[in-house]
Amino acid sequence: MLGKAKAKYIQSLGQKKHRDEEGLFIAEGPRIVSELLRSAPRNIKEVYAVKEWLKENAGHSREKDFIEVSDEELEKLSQLKTPHQVVAVVKKFEEEDTIDVKGKLSLVLDTIRDPGNLGTIIRIADWFDVSQIICSNDCADMYNPKVVQATMGSIGRVKIFYTGLEKWLQQQKDIRIYATTLEGKDISKMNALREGLIVIGNESQGIDKNIIALANEKITIPKKGSAESLNAAVATGIVLSHLNGK
Amino acid sequence: MLGKAKAKYIQSLGQKKHRDEEGLFIAEGPRIVSELLRSAPRNIKEVYAVKEWLKENAGHSREKDFIEVSDEELEKLSQLKTPHQVVAVVKKFEEEDTIDVKGKLSLVLDTIRDPGNLGTIIRIADWFDVSQIICSNDCADMYNPKVVQATMGSIGRVKIFYTGLEKWLQQQKDIRIYATTLEGKDISKMNALREGLIVIGNESQGIDKNIIALANEKITIPKKGSAESLNAAVATGIVLSHLNGK
Repeated sequence: MLGKAKAKYIQSLGQKKHRDEEGLFIAEGPRIVSELLRSAPRNIKEVYAVKEWLKENAGHSREKDFIEVSDEELEKLSQLKTPHQVVAVVKKFEEEDTIDVKGKLSLVLDTIRDPGNLGTIIRIADWFDVSQIICSNDCADMYNPKVVQATMGSIGRVKIFYTGLEKWLQQQKDIRIYATTLEGKDISKMNALREGLIVIGNESQGIDKNIIALANEKITIPKKGSAESLNAAVATGIVLSHLNGK
Repeated sequence: MLGKAKAKYIQSLGQKKHRDEEGLFIAEGPRIVSELLRSAPRNIKEVYAVKEWLKENAGHSREKDFIEVSDEELEKLSQLKTPHQVVAVVKKFEEEDTIDVKGKLSLVLDTIRDPGNLGTIIRIADWFDVSQIICSNDCADMYNPKVVQATMGSIGRVKIFYTGLEKWLQQQKDIRIYATTLEGKDISKMNALREGLIVIGNESQGIDKNIIALANEKITIPKKGSAESLNAAVATGIVLSHLNGK
């Protein structure tokens, strides 16, 4: 059973303001909720699910926080057009104070505003074992339901930081910065990297020129046909598939 | 000026049934409409645009088919939440009877149902100069407004066929078929291909097993981290960036 006020409260977590106030976010669907139950069980606060899901997940260590709802109730909680069995209320991940970039490859995102793109990029980082992403403050919010959805559960496994990008990059003196642009060194001819910051820019504007100016190297995905550009997430996948030296 | 019946008619092209009946589709936004005006001017039937767009595009050879609308009228035509200056009504591209696969690399899509993914894949093909895509009949419709939107104008430059995939692949005797799966030959260690069919599967189900059975080779994007899979469009971009021998 689900009270009206509670449903409204959970729905309100669709908005950043309420997520920030409560320190909570929502995750939907069996795949993502299962992943979070596995990777971050202690962050799960409550799980609202239909009977079918509860049956399949009976005996889980967090079972005491599972609450049965009807299809109609689920619809009232959900941010999706077609709700899918389960909605979890999850505590935001702990923020670390310092970003350690030594000895590893990190992704840096400049103004990735589309939540689907950000979520897909988090998933790509997880695939290639890139453990952290540094986002400019104007990127989409990592806890936006559409971001969470697009990560397919990878959100608990990649560290994500938000910062004033230009200032932060100015402080990175001992690490190479690679700016992904339309003209630069062909990534397919480069050696894999064991350390560095790979910057991906906003899809229509690219990387801010002040940030490009801070890069040690411009890199590019060689174009063979006519499209003007690639989707930012697709570009990220291609660059990491060539340069990730793990 | 725009009559109510006409607005309703154009809106109806958002549905496949009406697109098929009329042989028309719609394209929205300055970038995509400009691309189509350049790449397929003879396919443009009518362009409904606000004053600002008309001013910027004055003198175009198709100007006689430009119709001025107000912001309110544009809203009535548009499929988008936030209409963007211009809606074009476009004739579908001519269908070719035969698919010629010799001497080139082609993409084959098995059940890519998400319109955004299909559109992004068309754009990727255009970037890598892959000139044709063979889709299973249950892929999203290439003229779906969301597909057209995601191609960013590449839709006029890549040939797209729909067919019963299993049967069609059975007939391809003289060409190598590469199935992209979670286990197979590491694409980063393969030589570039000048000819072949690269099959990409549905994101949650992968490639149908009957179709995998027809492949000469299974290929894979090596996974280094923990994500279960990659988005289908991202996977397509990565595979083409490694294997396209153009």
